Parts: sequence; C-alpha cells; structure tokens
Amino acid sequence: MTDSYRQNIFFPNDFNKTAYDALLIKANDVAQKISAQVAGGNYPFLSAALKDDGTLDAARKFSGKFSDVVVLGTGGSSLGGKTCCAIADSKINVHFLANVDPDGFDRALKRLDPETTGVIAISKSGNTAETLCQLHAIVEWLGHNNLKEKLLVITEAGDNVMRKIAGQLGVAILDHNPKIGGRYSVLSIVGMLPAAIAGLDIAKIRAGAADILNRASTADSAAAIGAAVSITLNKHHKINQTVLMPYADALKTFAEWYKQLWAESVGKNGLGTTPIDALGTVDQHSQLQLYLDGPRDKFYTLILPDHAEEGARISPLKNASDDRLAYLYGRTMGDLIAAEGKATLQSLKNKDLPVRCIEIGKLNEHTLGALFMHFMLETMIGAELLGINAFDQPAVEEGKILTKKYLQELHNAA
Amino acid sequence: MTDSYRQNIFFPNDFNKTAYDALLIKANDVAQKISAQVAGGNYPFLSAALKDDGTLDAARKFSGKFSDVVVLGTGGSSLGGKTCCAIADSKINVHFLANVDPDGFDRALKRLDPETTGVIAISKSGNTAETLCQLHAIVEWLGHNNLKEKLLVITEAGDNVMRKIAGQLGVAILDHNPKIGGRYSVLSIVGMLPAAIAGLDIAKIRAGAADILNRASTADSAAAIGAAVSITLNKHHKINQTVLMPYADALKTFAEWYKQLWAESVGKNGLGTTPIDALGTVDQHSQLQLYLDGPRDKFYTLILPDHAEEGARISPLKNASDDRLAYLYGRTMGDLIAAEGKATLQSLKNKDLPVRCIEIGKLNEHTLGALFMHFMLETMIGAELLGINAFDQPAVEEGKILTKKYLQELHNAA
Repeated sequence: MTDSYRQNIFFPNDFNKTAYDALLIKANDVAQKISAQVAGGNYPFLSAALKDDGTLDAARKFSGKFSDVVVLGTGGSSLGGKTCCAIADSKINVHFLANVDPDGFDRALKRLDPETTGVIAISKSGNTAETLCQLHAIVEWLGHNNLKEKLLVITEAGDNVMRKIAGQLGVAILDHNPKIGGRYSVLSIVGMLPAAIAGLDIAKIRAGAADILNRASTADSAAAIGAAVSITLNKHHKINQTVLMPYADALKTFAEWYKQLWAESVGKNGLGTTPIDALGTVDQHSQLQLYLDGPRDKFYTLILPDHAEEGARISPLKNASDDRLAYLYGRTMGDLIAAEGKATLQSLKNKDLPVRCIEIGKLNEHTLGALFMHFMLETMIGAELLGINAFDQPAVEEGKILTKKYLQELHNAA
Repeated sequence: MTDSYRQNIFFPNDFNKTAYDALLIKANDVAQKISAQVAGGNYPFLSAALKDDGTLDAARKFSGKFSDVVVLGTGGSSLGGKTCCAIADSKINVHFLANVDPDGFDRALKRLDPETTGVIAISKSGNTAETLCQLHAIVEWLGHNNLKEKLLVITEAGDNVMRKIAGQLGVAILDHNPKIGGRYSVLSIVGMLPAAIAGLDIAKIRAGAADILNRASTADSAAAIGAAVSITLNKHHKINQTVLMPYADALKTFAEWYKQLWAESVGKNGLGTTPIDALGTVDQHSQLQLYLDGPRDKFYTLILPDHAEEGARISPLKNASDDRLAYLYGRTMGDLIAAEGKATLQSLKNKDLPVRCIEIGKLNEHTLGALFMHFMLETMIGAELLGINAFDQPAVEEGKILTKKYLQELHNAA
C-alpha cells in the first residue's frame, strides 16, 4: 500500500459545500464505474498498471549496447517516458526530442555519437508530421548503418506511414495498443520502455499505480474528491485555472505530463480549466506574488515529497559566518525546501485560497506510479462531471491540414 | 534597426474598440513618460541597454580557465542570464541552479568537476535563503580551494549576509545596482555576465534592446499597443490569462523569464492576468485542444522566428518512402516548424480568438535583446493601465518569515 500518499484539501470559507456534496456523489459513482470497467477488462491504459507486458525484455534487448538512447515523439509519445526518466539515475542517458526546431534538434544530436546511440521513434497514429520528420533526419544522422540494431519503432497496427517505412527499413516494430490514447499511455510500453531503459524498476511504478487504482472504488477516493473539488470550484467559484506545483525538480516534467492530460481531456465545448505547471521553490520567486495577491481564479495543488534530512547539511563556512543564518545552520538543504513548501501552503491558506497538498513520502518509482494513476483517474472523473469526452481531441485537426497546405505551397513555389 | 521585428494583432469580432482606443492613448502617454525618464537618467534597468558597463571585462577575467560555470540564484537572478545562454553555442557550459532540491542540486554537481568549474552566486538583497544555502553547499563541494579564483558574488552594496560572507572568504564582489529590481535586471551585469561567459555578443543584445527602447516614444509603439490590447481584453472581455508561445526551443526559457516579469509586476490587489508559457510545436500536442475549444479566457502571443530553409532537408530514405509524405519531401525541418506556427496562428484566428504574432527574423542576440525590451516596456505600461506598482512584490514576504519559523522549530526539536 502507498500508505504515505495523503491528500489534504483546504476549502475557502465561502466554498459551496452543497454543490460539492452533490458532485462528490457523482464523482464516486464515476469512480465505481471505472473500477467496474477495469475489472471487466476495459480501460487497458489503467489496467496496464496491473500486469507485465514484456516491456522489460524489450528494453534489455534493445538498449544493452548503447550509452545514449534518443526517443523521438511528441505529446503523449514523450511526456510519460520523460517524466519517468526524470527520477532515474541512469547509466544509459535517455533523451527526448519532441520538437522540430532545427536548431534545438541539431544541438541535441551534436552532443551524441551515432555509433553508441539507439533511437526509439514513437507515434501512435504513425502519421505525426513532427516525428516522421525527425525520423528521416535521424536516420541520415545514423548514416543508415545497422538500422536494425539501432532503431526501434512503436506505432499501432494497420496501414500508417511510420509502420510502412519501418517495414521497408526492416527495423523492429512494437505495437502501440490502439485502445490506449497517447496522453493515457504512460503505464503502457510507451512510457515504460524508456523508463526501463533508464534503469527504473517499472514493476514498482505499476505497483504504485495499482495501489491507487485499487482504492478508486472505495468511498471518497482521493481522485474522486480531487475531481469534485476542482469542478465545484470551476462551476461555482469562477476558478478557471488549476496550478500543479511540486516541490521537486524531478517532478517538473510530471507537471508537464499532467498539463497535457488535463488540457486535452477537459478543454472542449467551451468548458474546462487551464492547467498550469509551477515548481517549488523556484516559482515562489516568479509566480507566488500573483497567486497570493492577484485574482482569485486558481485552484492550487502542492505536491510535497518528504525531503527531511536530505542533501548537504548547512554549517558555517571556514572563517565565514553570520548570525542572521542561525535559522539555516544545522539544517539540510532538504529541510529548507520542505519548510518552504509548508510555508507556501500556509500562505495560500492564510489568503483563504482553495488549496490542497498531496504528500507522497519519498519520491521514487512507487510514489510516481501513484501520482500517474491519481491524476489519470481524477481527469477522467473531472471530464465526466463536466459532461466531456475525456478521450478525444477534435479541435487540433485543422492545424494539421493547414500545415500540409502551407508546405504544399512552399513546394509549388520552389 | 530591428527592421524584422513585426507585431500583428488580430482582434476578435466583438472587440471593444472604444475602450481600446482610450487605453491606447494612455499607453502611449506612459510610453512617452518612460522615454523621458530614461532620457533623464532614470530607469537604469532600461538604459542599461544603452551602455557598456565593463561586463565583458569581468566575464573575461573570471571565466577564462573554466570548462563550466555554475550560476547560483533564483527568480530574477537566474532567468535573464539563463534565457540568454539558451541561444548560445558556448565553449564554456553555463549551468543555472535555481532550486534547493537536494536531489536536483547533487545531480547537477555530480556531472561537474570542481577543478574546472567556476561559480557565480547572485542575490540582489544578499539575504535570499535558497542562494545562501546553495552557496554554502557549493563552497564545500569546491573544497574551499582557490575560492578567490573560483567564486564571484553579485549583490547590492550595504550590510547583507552574502556580502559579509564573501568579504570573509576574500572573494570578488560585483555590485548589483540597487535601483535595478531582479526581474528587470537582464540587461545589467546580472544577465549579461552569464551571457558574455557563454560567448554571446552582449553589445548586440543591448543594441537590439536599444532599438525597441528608442521606438517606445513614437506613436503607437508595439509595446504600447500590446499593453493596451492586453488590458482591454482583461477589463472588457474576461480574459484573465496571457499565453506566450514561441516557436523555438531556445525561447522556452524566454517565456519563463516573461512569466516572472509579468506575474510579479501586475499580480497585485486582486488584479492582473496570469502568464502562461507554451512552446511551439510541442504544445500543439498538449495545450492547443484547450486553446481552440476550451473557454475563451486567453490572449495568445505567438513568437515566430524565421526558420526558412533551416535544418535537415527531408528526402525519401534509401528504399523507404511513402506518397503520403509528399508534403514533406523537399522541405526542411525549419520549413515544417514555420508552417506549423503559421497554421496555429490561422487556427486561433479562425476561432475568432484574440491573438498576435511577433515575427522577429532570425533568432540571435539582436532579436533576443529586442524581445527583452519589448516585454519589459509592455509590462510597465500594462501595470500602469491597471493602476499597479510594477516594481514591488509585497505578498511573498510572509512565506519567507514562515520558512524561517519552520526551520527554527526543526532546530528546537533537534
């Protein structure tokens, strides 16, 4: 059990408790239905938490000989794996290239050696323009040598561009489960393969996720409460932003993963709230003034890992000390970040702002898995409370069509 | 002249033109007053753009012998320099440590060699807990050896902790101009020293900034227009968020710099809008669904550098091609990111959302300097239009006091 996973909600004085109580009943009902779906073999992106799917074998087979692995892919194809790798202390360096900025792309490759670098290209649909463009550039960079050893493709079955090209190149293809949408794919091979390559114990990530999933059907699970609070604040308190502020560098990417998950799932039909990522302590020096004294339009979630006794202990330097640092002497760097997280929480509470803190214990595979599952469930429940389909993203198709049109015009002009 | 700097605003159909016209008159008036202040020798954080202050000499003197330089500091002490270094192709690697996460801090140092690493510690007040904590940890890491060569401190004059400790250690101290607030310090030694160390031509950064500053007093400068649009949308269209989305990896940090600048300057007295950083093309796969189809509560600014012909040209691979990629063949990676930026702009316009694009030409020192100045001016004008003091941040003091209290409690418990 993830006994260390604790969610505390602090409601503002004028909180609409009646509306919340009604939404919580619905939220619990949705959580029950999700549990039933999982038990019935549906929602494979959640039940991926419950089983081994050979990811570890695939990772061992592919990555043994490399010093570096580059993951090509964007959105859901990169954020989950990247989030996992951020907590790893890896022998193999895993790099995530998500953009088609030629400058950024070239700089990243300049630091790598094509002789000792493996490449994984991930696109669910197999038709993502950015990833296909990257794939072409990196095959040229690899010099077409040993592609069968160096390149691995993850895409869904069927007739798509990436699968066809991978077939023509003769490189290995792993199947992207067509029932797992990109932003919900972290616990599948899409997120777990990079995690395993980076040396993480993916069984522990999945166990942490399973713990939370198993609790989803209990009354008032943390995910159901979180969704009900969030949507109550949106519907009845003009809160249209939701800030996720972990106090850990390694969770900065987690907040980006969450941003995609929440934004694409609930941002439809004029509804939804805007997810905002922040990082403690850094954003105390950037965003906290606005949070405390600006408009009251945000719901705050602090993620507070247990940093007690971690890191360097601060003592007076040789021949250099100052009484004004008495508060710091004898404490560790971890004590300081923990005290700052607690102070920010109290400052938000003192302003009567809606805030919750999620205490996770030590940040590791298990607690990261728990966070993934918590926020996937909360997002699915939140979308249901808004009456939104959590699994599509219809609005972005136009841009893809326009991109092709503009490139065609360049072609015609050439 | 920054002739390539062009701002285009696209107003939604229901835009309140009357309110805007009135605000624009005020905005131009504020811009005139700022210009007069600069001409009169005030606002040194702006006029820093106009002169050399020996930064280059300081950089040469300090950094010659290092392979790596670590900058300690948070908020305004790090974001400006970090933003500059992001566009550098540096021989000396400059690392910015802004947090007191012991795990993140230790990992960063683990990759560095204390023998070949120099350290710059920046705190305007000289009392920032995080930076002082980092400074203690890094002096221990350096082993107290050659501190006079290896350590440089930037802080304001007077009796503060960092200055006292630096004095006791006998290391060099450069003065932080007390009239330059952290978030407006990028063009001063605070931002320019790391930039110069990273090999950038800081005269060009300042020249780009000076170009925009010199245009501030002309009728309807881009900064005055931007501020008037932004505040009109806030006051009359329920827009409480402002999204900055550059299409360049190297401007990701620029958007973070902007976030601090805007949030701390305007987020007061219940007023202000929330700055949101996004990155093209990556956030097309994360946030664009929400932008296009979620609530109409955001003002969008796309920064579009000229990427034409940049990067790898995409051709069919040896023995592997697909007609469905005809739109990509013959184009460069830069053509693709440019087409995607244009497509996102058009998609936002098609939804009748308020959006502007800033075209900057090629991203380099000159255009980065122009962006810095544009957004500093726009922020100062925007704050004036809201009736807000752009230069203080009163709300965050409580957290600092609470942090010390919690650490004191740990001390008492020990």
